[in-house]
Amino acid sequence: MKIGIVGYGNLGRGVESAVQLAGDMELVAIFTRRDPSTVKVASDAPVVSMDKLDEMAEDIDVMILCGGSATDLPEMTPQIAAKCNVVDSFDTHANIPQHLAAVDAQASKAGNIGIISVGWDPGLFSVARLYANAALPKGDDYTFWGKGVSQGHSDAIRRIDGVVDARQYTIPVEESVNKVRAGEHPQLTTRQKHTRECFVVAEEGADTKAIEEAIVTMPNYFADYDTTVKFITQEEMDSEHSGLPHGGSVLRSGMTGVDGQFNNTVEFSLNLESNPFFTGSVLTAVARAAVRMNAEGVTGAKTIFDIPPYCLAETPREELIAHML
Amino acid sequence: MKIGIVGYGNLGRGVESAVQLAGDMELVAIFTRRDPSTVKVASDAPVVSMDKLDEMAEDIDVMILCGGSATDLPEMTPQIAAKCNVVDSFDTHANIPQHLAAVDAQASKAGNIGIISVGWDPGLFSVARLYANAALPKGDDYTFWGKGVSQGHSDAIRRIDGVVDARQYTIPVEESVNKVRAGEHPQLTTRQKHTRECFVVAEEGADTKAIEEAIVTMPNYFADYDTTVKFITQEEMDSEHSGLPHGGSVLRSGMTGVDGQFNNTVEFSLNLESNPFFTGSVLTAVARAAVRMNAEGVTGAKTIFDIPPYCLAETPREELIAHML
Repeated sequence: MKIGIVGYGNLGRGVESAVQLAGDMELVAIFTRRDPSTVKVASDAPVVSMDKLDEMAEDIDVMILCGGSATDLPEMTPQIAAKCNVVDSFDTHANIPQHLAAVDAQASKAGNIGIISVGWDPGLFSVARLYANAALPKGDDYTFWGKGVSQGHSDAIRRIDGVVDARQYTIPVEESVNKVRAGEHPQLTTRQKHTRECFVVAEEGADTKAIEEAIVTMPNYFADYDTTVKFITQEEMDSEHSGLPHGGSVLRSGMTGVDGQFNNTVEFSLNLESNPFFTGSVLTAVARAAVRMNAEGVTGAKTIFDIPPYCLAETPREELIAHML
Repeated sequence: MKIGIVGYGNLGRGVESAVQLAGDMELVAIFTRRDPSTVKVASDAPVVSMDKLDEMAEDIDVMILCGGSATDLPEMTPQIAAKCNVVDSFDTHANIPQHLAAVDAQASKAGNIGIISVGWDPGLFSVARLYANAALPKGDDYTFWGKGVSQGHSDAIRRIDGVVDARQYTIPVEESVNKVRAGEHPQLTTRQKHTRECFVVAEEGADTKAIEEAIVTMPNYFADYDTTVKFITQEEMDSEHSGLPHGGSVLRSGMTGVDGQFNNTVEFSLNLESNPFFTGSVLTAVARAAVRMNAEGVTGAKTIFDIPPYCLAETPREELIAHML
């Protein structure tokens, strides 16, 4: 399968690496809006200007889109779906139906498939929720994120006066997770689900009390959480907090029996040393499914809910059934 | 959807209950090889002799087969697949390819679908392994079962001279599970993965030392495990050990990055108060998928690997995408 990558940030690097590890894939090109001569990539794939995408699209089986959900993907995914099969990681949950419709219009017309909102949430977490809900129609869903770095929250701290660098970890409240696991079906407030731990490098002479206050009272981002703030040096930041770990758990606690007499807990958990590399790896598996499904005549906008799982694996279906079922 | 159940043991009761809870299903009949007048069921569904199955099959959208894997299903599933869409829980892992072929021959010819080996293992555990392997092609798989009742092991104890009743719990070794979760990629022996806890009611005056010895040295079943045996009264057995709880965890610990520099752990866990009721609930969700897939022209023998997940849920696809993705 001939693969193209569009966009080369952390996620693009993760996809590049996953494609290199796949025995059935060839990385044809990495497309960038920057001057290609300034983009140094980890593989020996050619870096090509976005202007060349249209003419190269016909030699590519699927394009893996590694732009951001805020502004890149809403434009980029429908546009490129008109030229080629695509996979993206659009993760603005509230706008998924709208994005699906926009991609569907272009992909259907062109006879391509566009699989959107792929990664782990949305993505593997979503499909875990779906299996758990199908098996336990009566019950309660819970999602806990972390321990992991939230880039949005880290950026929010960096915008505060006097802050040089910041890293924010989202941490699930263990006591609440255990209540769910124990089948207690708790009703949890925002504060009871997650805490937020912030590491901050301040400018020399900055008012750290004022910075801490600005963080913990910040609406939406921190005010509803128990937030701790630690000031550290840039050296500590670089040596201790340079990774992008993440993860979390999807749980469903639900009843079987006509009278709901049996409680059951289904849990799906991820513990990832690198969020973008894992997300890139999921996108790559879904890109394989996109090519296979399109070859079988499937067109239009799809999600992970539409993919027969065997299509994701390099191993052939018969072998999966014999050895993994 | 019109549902038939074939066989009415613990699993049949679980399916019956799950079908009653489904808003889109109607339980048309429960088929039995016993004299129907002797079978008392929990719902108001008619109990019908197996002899009537052929003539009633055309009014049923899917038949959920609740027989045993040893002798019932290898004969029953292909036979009934020639008449009707079917779903079964065939769980003799080594014979799955052979069973798939036998069901495929009959189902394909008749234009029906037969989804085999459905439940949690094989079933949800299998599909969890598949997603984890697709996302992490480089890595190690681990499956831990329990804490839960193994009916095969309980039966093996009951066959020992002087034993009146027995219940065997399979228990994962927590220390080993934690090593896997910590990304240590351990190589685990049989003994390091599970322990076995046995509760036994002995005949009055029986030689309990001899019974214990017969249990812990029993090849295949117990000899390779750390096994504990406790003798209890029938009253204790009935009050403390009448349930059929089970569960377990599928873990994959795998690397991302071309040099395998990032470790990641994917875990899928179940904690079930009633194994047969949960398994019945999964079979029922898959029965829904069978009807939908067959209506879209899919025929032949399939597995959970072939099912687009959205087909499993009562909730329509658009709603799943809007609210669960």
